[in-house]
Amino acid sequence: MRMAELSAESGVPVATVKYYLREGLLPPGERTSPNQAHYEPGHVRRLRLIRAMLEVGGLSISQVRAVLDAMDAPEVDLHDVFGVAQRAVTAVPSGAGEQALAWARTRVADLVAERGWAVSLDSAPARALAGVLARVYEIAGRPPADQLSARAELAERVAELDVSSIEARDSVEDMVEGVVVGTVLGDAVFGALRRMAQVDASARRFATRAR
Amino acid sequence: MRMAELSAESGVPVATVKYYLREGLLPPGERTSPNQAHYEPGHVRRLRLIRAMLEVGGLSISQVRAVLDAMDAPEVDLHDVFGVAQRAVTAVPSGAGEQALAWARTRVADLVAERGWAVSLDSAPARALAGVLARVYEIAGRPPADQLSARAELAERVAELDVSSIEARDSVEDMVEGVVVGTVLGDAVFGALRRMAQVDASARRFATRAR
Repeated sequence: MRMAELSAESGVPVATVKYYLREGLLPPGERTSPNQAHYEPGHVRRLRLIRAMLEVGGLSISQVRAVLDAMDAPEVDLHDVFGVAQRAVTAVPSGAGEQALAWARTRVADLVAERGWAVSLDSAPARALAGVLARVYEIAGRPPADQLSARAELAERVAELDVSSIEARDSVEDMVEGVVVGTVLGDAVFGALRRMAQVDASARRFATRAR
Repeated sequence: MRMAELSAESGVPVATVKYYLREGLLPPGERTSPNQAHYEPGHVRRLRLIRAMLEVGGLSISQVRAVLDAMDAPEVDLHDVFGVAQRAVTAVPSGAGEQALAWARTRVADLVAERGWAVSLDSAPARALAGVLARVYEIAGRPPADQLSARAELAERVAELDVSSIEARDSVEDMVEGVVVGTVLGDAVFGALRRMAQVDASARRFATRAR
């Protein structure tokens, strides 16, 4: 297809498609004349993935480039694609005090040991967890009753679903895309499900409850 | 305590504390002279909650104000505080095509019926779920094998933990704060746990796997 069709099919304006081409996010089409190129259905799919990372995942252009580079490098294994996608979407909150952070880091280390997780305490998600727990501690003024072990067990079961739905995909290319979609959009899916379930649980327990 | 101590204790600069006072996010202290006011430990706690909503939850000043107003209104019940906090943190993604959105809305309606959830399809989380599922559909070019029922069941169990940890708090004031902390910071906690569990599951299944 030509540029105009690529734009119509993907819903992305021509000027934006050209910007992604210049930024190297989208591979160039096959040149058919000095002013024209031919694009494949794979270009449409790639454009939709880029838009989802930018608009739903909230990634920057350079974060999107890092994820796509990892996707396109045949020497990068699936586990490493997970790592790159996770670093792009994981914001590590700063600003908590040293005392709260020291408590939170110990809490995270204990949890990792308890669950037997093969996860570095220096990884983005482990540092993010410590940063958020430190904030919760500071607001409460004491170690919160966080039920972290029970939450971690449920998180394991969600992660098993994530990994098995990636394994069920047809091709390696599909699996790599599944890692990125699952990481970037998966949080939004589970977050929405959890809030819907909270509304239901809270309606049964709290509605009309006097304060 | 005086303004300088309030700033030191909370780690929030004096100019920022004054800005929150002007914006009505922080209730005024008790005036002790024309140029001085006295602040309580509750002011420190409120400042930490405001910072967490802004810096970890990514809320705007006006969203923070809406949440605090609901917290402070004695006629608003706990279930309604949940609703206000959820609307503040839930981004409803737009930009998916009509065909994908129509499919996603039906998918969400079927899920709500299947789980028996007392949740409006017009609520922010239900619309957010449809928006994200529509994007996943568009990228794949077909209805994704999303294991949504299994995910919804796990989300229910996380929501039960959320609601029961709020019920376990000492006072109604504490419970209201728990709703806000759980909603605004709870996603970041569970998201980090899920990513750590993904790293562990992916290391066992995918590391060194050929592409």
